[in-house]
Amino acid sequence: MSAFISHYTLDHLVQLSQPDSSDIRESTPSLKALAKARSKGYDGICLPLTNEKWKARWRSLCLLPDDENPDKGALEQRAEQWRSNPSFSREEVTITRIDEAENAIILLSDWLELDAPDDWVRHDAEMALIQELAYASYLNVHTAILPPPRNRDHVASYARAVNAALASVPYMQLSIRLPIYDPSMIQLGQTPTTPAFGKRSSTSSILSIPHPSTTLVDDQTSTATWEMWDAIRSICEYHPRLNLTLDLTPLLPSALSILQQWVAEPTRYIFLPASAFIANAKGYPVLPKGTQSFIRDIMKAACGQIQPAVILSGTDSGRHSKGGEPAYSQYVRHLEKTSPAIKAMKTEGTVENFAQGYQDYLQAPLQPLMDNLQSITYHTFEQDPVKYQQYEEAVYHALIDWPDSDRILICVAGAGRGPLVARSLLAIKRANRNAFVYAVEKNKNAFVTLQERQATEWGDDKVKLLFGDMRTLDIPEKVDILVSELLGSFGDNELSPECLDGAMRFLKPDGISIPASYTAYIAPISSSKLYNEAHAAKDEKGTETPYVVMLQAINIMSGDGGGISGKCGAQVQECWEFEHPRRDAVLDSQGLPFTNSHNVRSAKLRFHIPHGGALHGMAGYFEAVLYGHVGLSIHPQRKDYISKDMLSWFPLFFPFKEPLYLPSKCELQVSIWRLTNQRKVWYEWYAEAFLPLPGTSSTLPQTPPSEALKLRVPSSPHPGVEGSPMIDAIDVSDAVSERAFKSLDGIENTGGARLVKIGQTSLHNPRGRSSWIGL
Amino acid sequence: MSAFISHYTLDHLVQLSQPDSSDIRESTPSLKALAKARSKGYDGICLPLTNEKWKARWRSLCLLPDDENPDKGALEQRAEQWRSNPSFSREEVTITRIDEAENAIILLSDWLELDAPDDWVRHDAEMALIQELAYASYLNVHTAILPPPRNRDHVASYARAVNAALASVPYMQLSIRLPIYDPSMIQLGQTPTTPAFGKRSSTSSILSIPHPSTTLVDDQTSTATWEMWDAIRSICEYHPRLNLTLDLTPLLPSALSILQQWVAEPTRYIFLPASAFIANAKGYPVLPKGTQSFIRDIMKAACGQIQPAVILSGTDSGRHSKGGEPAYSQYVRHLEKTSPAIKAMKTEGTVENFAQGYQDYLQAPLQPLMDNLQSITYHTFEQDPVKYQQYEEAVYHALIDWPDSDRILICVAGAGRGPLVARSLLAIKRANRNAFVYAVEKNKNAFVTLQERQATEWGDDKVKLLFGDMRTLDIPEKVDILVSELLGSFGDNELSPECLDGAMRFLKPDGISIPASYTAYIAPISSSKLYNEAHAAKDEKGTETPYVVMLQAINIMSGDGGGISGKCGAQVQECWEFEHPRRDAVLDSQGLPFTNSHNVRSAKLRFHIPHGGALHGMAGYFEAVLYGHVGLSIHPQRKDYISKDMLSWFPLFFPFKEPLYLPSKCELQVSIWRLTNQRKVWYEWYAEAFLPLPGTSSTLPQTPPSEALKLRVPSSPHPGVEGSPMIDAIDVSDAVSERAFKSLDGIENTGGARLVKIGQTSLHNPRGRSSWIGL
Repeated sequence: MSAFISHYTLDHLVQLSQPDSSDIRESTPSLKALAKARSKGYDGICLPLTNEKWKARWRSLCLLPDDENPDKGALEQRAEQWRSNPSFSREEVTITRIDEAENAIILLSDWLELDAPDDWVRHDAEMALIQELAYASYLNVHTAILPPPRNRDHVASYARAVNAALASVPYMQLSIRLPIYDPSMIQLGQTPTTPAFGKRSSTSSILSIPHPSTTLVDDQTSTATWEMWDAIRSICEYHPRLNLTLDLTPLLPSALSILQQWVAEPTRYIFLPASAFIANAKGYPVLPKGTQSFIRDIMKAACGQIQPAVILSGTDSGRHSKGGEPAYSQYVRHLEKTSPAIKAMKTEGTVENFAQGYQDYLQAPLQPLMDNLQSITYHTFEQDPVKYQQYEEAVYHALIDWPDSDRILICVAGAGRGPLVARSLLAIKRANRNAFVYAVEKNKNAFVTLQERQATEWGDDKVKLLFGDMRTLDIPEKVDILVSELLGSFGDNELSPECLDGAMRFLKPDGISIPASYTAYIAPISSSKLYNEAHAAKDEKGTETPYVVMLQAINIMSGDGGGISGKCGAQVQECWEFEHPRRDAVLDSQGLPFTNSHNVRSAKLRFHIPHGGALHGMAGYFEAVLYGHVGLSIHPQRKDYISKDMLSWFPLFFPFKEPLYLPSKCELQVSIWRLTNQRKVWYEWYAEAFLPLPGTSSTLPQTPPSEALKLRVPSSPHPGVEGSPMIDAIDVSDAVSERAFKSLDGIENTGGARLVKIGQTSLHNPRGRSSWIGL
Repeated sequence: MSAFISHYTLDHLVQLSQPDSSDIRESTPSLKALAKARSKGYDGICLPLTNEKWKARWRSLCLLPDDENPDKGALEQRAEQWRSNPSFSREEVTITRIDEAENAIILLSDWLELDAPDDWVRHDAEMALIQELAYASYLNVHTAILPPPRNRDHVASYARAVNAALASVPYMQLSIRLPIYDPSMIQLGQTPTTPAFGKRSSTSSILSIPHPSTTLVDDQTSTATWEMWDAIRSICEYHPRLNLTLDLTPLLPSALSILQQWVAEPTRYIFLPASAFIANAKGYPVLPKGTQSFIRDIMKAACGQIQPAVILSGTDSGRHSKGGEPAYSQYVRHLEKTSPAIKAMKTEGTVENFAQGYQDYLQAPLQPLMDNLQSITYHTFEQDPVKYQQYEEAVYHALIDWPDSDRILICVAGAGRGPLVARSLLAIKRANRNAFVYAVEKNKNAFVTLQERQATEWGDDKVKLLFGDMRTLDIPEKVDILVSELLGSFGDNELSPECLDGAMRFLKPDGISIPASYTAYIAPISSSKLYNEAHAAKDEKGTETPYVVMLQAINIMSGDGGGISGKCGAQVQECWEFEHPRRDAVLDSQGLPFTNSHNVRSAKLRFHIPHGGALHGMAGYFEAVLYGHVGLSIHPQRKDYISKDMLSWFPLFFPFKEPLYLPSKCELQVSIWRLTNQRKVWYEWYAEAFLPLPGTSSTLPQTPPSEALKLRVPSSPHPGVEGSPMIDAIDVSDAVSERAFKSLDGIENTGGARLVKIGQTSLHNPRGRSSWIGL
């Protein structure tokens, strides 16, 4: 739910303060403004905490007086007196009562330059900031929007002041206001007006900047404001009370993937001036497609969390001929209502609906080998509308392909409460084969359910139940088809390879394993939320083990392409594969492997990072071939073609101890290992970043080397974009696509560049902490 | 003290093992080798742990047999059996007894490729490594030298294995063997022979590589081996049991500043083959100047610590016509004996001698304002042969310059045990002036000493003692000259500015303060030792407060020059300055400042980093103008010209929480703040690294902007190099100077490059932990 809030200038508030009402609740300018805003459909107001009187006093005290000024000494003395006890007088502030603060979003004095080049201006600005925060805290203000950073050179000083500010108030949220990119850095076609975040002219002007007519910027300049944000929150150590107010005043081009980086950040407010709207054919204000899709992306990222509140401004300026003031807020509410993500979340049967409450929530992976699962856990996973259908298909096709015989034997290894037994029986029936099913289960509790189902559903002639661990149990005869569902989010992470090493003793030499193989995939991701969640864990384990997570407010940082070395692979890359039955297995007299060495794996992968950002970890996915063309996949680009709407697995998240800063167009090299000893299996991971050696040529993204994937999907794996539910305007920014945002630097694209290392992470999980203890 | 140790090949040991002695102590090959080595003047031997039989078994098991091999199945089964219980037989190892290990440096099998491209070779090499370490640990081996890394692409796998190895043995030191740079990467004039660290041919060949005739390499390739070391020890989290065996087989050019990076690393052994020696005019083996100076630098860095042991090899090959086998070890011992650093350390009155035991040792800064110092502390500092001489000079010149009068008044603020009082009296006598000294001291214990000196030395007519804190005390009359010694290693870090704010009340409006001003300087440094020391502290304070340290095994990473932006300053840069008396001071009726805001400072500095490395923190220095041209300085390039042999201050070290990886030719931007509130003063610091935006031109070092320094020193601040005490050979490598090592990449040097950020540190000390509580 977005809160629609209008911004009232101080002058307006003062006019409203003329006594014209006897209701004590509306006796102050800000309460009047609130009442007026609510009458127009807004939820609240956003207003500055201070007025021009305070600005004038601060300037007179803190900006150096002329040496010739006869009052110089007196002024400096008054300034020192202010510094020794910084405080307001009543005339300098816009609110004085807690009920005024309750429904207002508070802007601190935006003319305070915490990043001024001048040491003294910075010092006194910080002192004023702390004074304003102390007053706001007194009034119980919940969130204060800080003056925006303006000077990249002194962003460290800005950030240090914000960090001190966070420490100075105990509960308040502080929000850093930033334009989505810096329009002053636009290089072509810029309308020669005041840039949104250059020097401020007046308090009320900040939300009424004409938008630039064209928007050709290169990647570095368009990441400049993001980089300031990253420096600020890094210096504040990802403080949980620090968030972001994104200013959408600069016109957004459509399909600009660089904006994706904002999706992974904690956006609390969105500033949306009337000037960001364009008129549709009927003259009503609508948003350009770029802005529409960006707002929808932000809404999607916040699904299941608190949606950022939109702050509209300038809606009473009559900029658009139709609809009047309410048209703007109505349009934004419409945008929200028709958001595909929000619609999907409200539709039963969708992953989005199923996953509600689990978005970006870290869960320890299941340990079905060590723990006996509860019935409710089985129940949840048996709800999956797709997974068991795929299993049935796989068994059906395996039966069809298997030479017909009197009695085809199937073993379900790890039968749980019996879903695979039931599906195998259905497949047998469909294939019209004469087959018999052994069901092996080591969970003594689930085994009771299996007995019940056999007695009431399956009968003795079709199914035989066997109690025990598939790694040690013996079964009466070898089978033709071995069916198991031991896969985790990363394929092998719930010890499927180790369990099936034992279960392979059940299978005839030419028998079929379902699954036939599974592959682990990773991709580098940025997510403030996941980083904070992993670091909120009290012990070191927080960043030393992977988590199961419904990934939502994340940004996959990699792009397809060869990258600067020409050797980078796809956006999501394969780590390793396990096949069953194993080829070339060396086994002891019991048919078991001597060691677990054959289940060790490692991968060294190269990712092209087109747009700079902070790397917080790796997302892990799997894809399995059950049989032939039937598979299961949570690979983000392939899942919809292989097992659409499957619910059973959220991705894995491999967290990093510290964020790794990645500049645009760098190469990320990731090492990941699956390791084992006599007692356990675990992963370790590590990453390094590279840029081209200065002076060597660099390569723009190339087609990635095609991977030998076992399951075919359409060559263009992106689902078509749905049509907009409202009449879209003819949008000038449409022409400004991602391609127009290419670098203006004229980098030569001949061959791979030599690389220079620029950074690295720690080695993660070197002590082999593991959730998967089984050997 | 270097240990001189020869390397014996296994064959040689086996020959020695023929029974020819009845002494049980010398009955094994390795003990015979030790006895023989000792008879030739060596302290011990370095030998491989395993022999060719082990190598042959490992290869037969672990390298994949031909698919056509009829024994394939049996071999794979034997390999799995080995993996399930990896162990040696007696014939495969060179030592079997703890007395054999006692005096031997042990080389693990150097043919083990922990970084092989093949997953299986890596897996089995790691398994063999752990097996060898387990056996070495059984024999109580103190240090094992590991097989060298050979493959940059898989250095992460190598490092992960080393980290596992460190965890597998409880006490043993592990030493990573590395050539000082990778000779296989030399681009011109390379002798076409086996590179030192390419594929090994045989165990005994590793120390007998002919040195290349020419050595033009670019900076990136010459840092390649250092970069591998950095990756390894970073992945091992700077493990205290991990150190370095530097192989000096590649010929060292003279004056190659890139070698400085090794000085900051924990070198335990130095491999020095006879082939690294050249013949002098008389035919005796001597080292080229480059190698000489490098070894001396390493010795200097290790001063006061354990000196690295030199391992000589090939000394019996008759490579040089004169001197025979002992000539090599004699030469190295000579090098040590004549090392200027070691000589200085043994000479009384030098800083090196004074500082013995304090090298790279972290001390909390003194807090003379909060604590009353002990007499022994005053005693130590009063020993300084230079500091009080400078004070006497300053007072003398101030008196000479002061208009003669009946009675010039001097106040010593913070008199301690009286050294400045005594020096002031000497200056008064020399200047032949009529002057009187007030001595203010707040340490009640030291005040007793002052009374004693007044009674026995000074008398009442020249000196009046006043007890109390200079910030609150009133004195009988205002004085002409105020003398204080409140400076810390960073100038202002012992609260001199705050104390003198109070003491300025004692001074006439046109009076003289000695010191007149002081300036804080910083430089970025690399030092494994300091990083480890700061992190050894149990609480977080370890990396949140600066330390006083006699910096020794460090590398200043910055160079003079404009750097890539063209805006970088000098190697060591000024942060800020304090002047006394303050100009434009605004004071209250007591003559005190209203707030401490005027003592807030900040600096944002840009450093050019010519050669890549790991940044571990900032070194802090000060320089003070006492009066006129008389000063005190610990600025590394200026101290010898301003106050040579002054002992009283070691530099400050501002530690970093995590090392910041800096590639060659990057720009480091450092922010540092001096902050204050009502109760305390503290520093915060932060750094960011930048490279040129790919595709933009970059600038090679330019002359730094000249600083307006108050004390003049000669324009070339580097002391002349002392002559070598032995006859040096005509050294071909002399011609290969630092300049020849310039980049081969042909970077254009036109104007400053646009920068791209590549990394950052945390903000340090944001909670304002401070050693200096005073306000």
